[in-house]
Amino acid sequence: MQINPEHRLTAAVIEQLGQCPDRRLQQISGALIRHLHDFIREVELQPEEWLGAIRFLTRTGQACDDKRQEFVLLSDLLGASMLVDQMANRKPAGATASSVLGPFYVEGAPERANGADLAALPGPRVHVSGTVRDLAGAPIASALLDVWQTAPNGLYHVQDKDQPEHHLCGKLRSRADGSYDFITLEPVSYPIPTDGPAGQYLQAMGRHPYRPAHLHFIVTAPGYQPLVTQLFTAGDPYLDSDAVFGVKPELVIEYQRQADGNMGVAFDFVLEPVQAR
Amino acid sequence: MQINPEHRLTAAVIEQLGQCPDRRLQQISGALIRHLHDFIREVELQPEEWLGAIRFLTRTGQACDDKRQEFVLLSDLLGASMLVDQMANRKPAGATASSVLGPFYVEGAPERANGADLAALPGPRVHVSGTVRDLAGAPIASALLDVWQTAPNGLYHVQDKDQPEHHLCGKLRSRADGSYDFITLEPVSYPIPTDGPAGQYLQAMGRHPYRPAHLHFIVTAPGYQPLVTQLFTAGDPYLDSDAVFGVKPELVIEYQRQADGNMGVAFDFVLEPVQAR
Repeated sequence: MQINPEHRLTAAVIEQLGQCPDRRLQQISGALIRHLHDFIREVELQPEEWLGAIRFLTRTGQACDDKRQEFVLLSDLLGASMLVDQMANRKPAGATASSVLGPFYVEGAPERANGADLAALPGPRVHVSGTVRDLAGAPIASALLDVWQTAPNGLYHVQDKDQPEHHLCGKLRSRADGSYDFITLEPVSYPIPTDGPAGQYLQAMGRHPYRPAHLHFIVTAPGYQPLVTQLFTAGDPYLDSDAVFGVKPELVIEYQRQADGNMGVAFDFVLEPVQAR
Repeated sequence: MQINPEHRLTAAVIEQLGQCPDRRLQQISGALIRHLHDFIREVELQPEEWLGAIRFLTRTGQACDDKRQEFVLLSDLLGASMLVDQMANRKPAGATASSVLGPFYVEGAPERANGADLAALPGPRVHVSGTVRDLAGAPIASALLDVWQTAPNGLYHVQDKDQPEHHLCGKLRSRADGSYDFITLEPVSYPIPTDGPAGQYLQAMGRHPYRPAHLHFIVTAPGYQPLVTQLFTAGDPYLDSDAVFGVKPELVIEYQRQADGNMGVAFDFVLEPVQAR
């Protein structure tokens, strides 16, 4: 008969993994059980706290729909998303650093020509330009740049019924010389949603919900590792305390006044070849 | 500017708890972040595995409704529920041991007289009887025994639209001498639900979904610690491998043939006074 005194329970649960047909699932599940039990024992989790956690996780799942991913947000604000991202993207020197995808990426943005204006609102424009290159500095032609960002009200189009679908989003292709450029509105710092379980937990922890202003990019080209990253606005007050821990110093960019009076910023993406791993 | 190389990220996330106004939430959250990051680092969790976990948690939340609690089931099958239960119920010698509540408890079962038959189906009856006592052996009168169990088809009434509401459930009061008794159907071993995310995960781990046959009880009386427990049927083939790790040897009971030809079983509940903690 199975005897489960407190100190033997963890071993008994892990023992039941002996017949797991998937070695990787066995490894992940064994580690999950061990760390979960260690956590529960360390804080001596009380039944009413356990029930609170069950209810919190349930609310978090039920807050998800086709336009909102509350578990991604929770993972982001616990630093888990960034940790997974960092381990998966240990880049060679010179390659552009990664950052988290975030919960607001939507597939299916329209293709735009270089020089296109992604904004459908009045307001001062910024000109974003640069090149896509390999580690040796050679241009990468026809790289796909999938871009998205917030509107001046701090909302992504998927959060805001007053914005057109795919507003401030677009897919661009680098030219033969690797160059790209587009016109947009300057991104703003904004709070992550605090009307759901993840944001409420963030606030209960005494943390502010702000992310520093940034542009999102996914840059892909055949033969190169896909790059998911963000470019952060220099001088933003939240660079030091990003609610989702996405900032890396090499991803901070300076917007500067151009001759035409508008602001401009340049950034070169450097992709790592597939075989570099 | 915040610099988040891989080895500094965990410290940066925990540092953000510095303003947490709730000391207990600060403690729990700090431990959660540390153990979660340790888990992710240990298994070097890959982005597609992370995304699989996000989708799994989302499905788990969305499978919950007013009659189904899939996160409780997940907690049960990972041994987390039983661990929380064991830590919260370190009983003095002689007190009846606890086991997990499980996901199928429903409040509001009707009060029944001692001797009542909880079953609305034909079939051989069992007679369950015993006393409720304190640690010194003195009877506890008017203790409330909230009982629930599966039908012969392996389903609780909340899982089965063909059973009347609160079928095989009831609230009994111990008599002045501490005794109680009721008539019911013998419980059966049964699979936990495998049509949801938690049960599917269980099966992917190569584990069977069965629980050994048992009766559930919540026993309460003023001045005593509430007792949540289960009584398991001796000889059940799943006593050694309960899918939710709820079995303790002192909770295993023998059903025996009575003079009237029906089966009977006796169990005395021993409650711990509130001041014993």
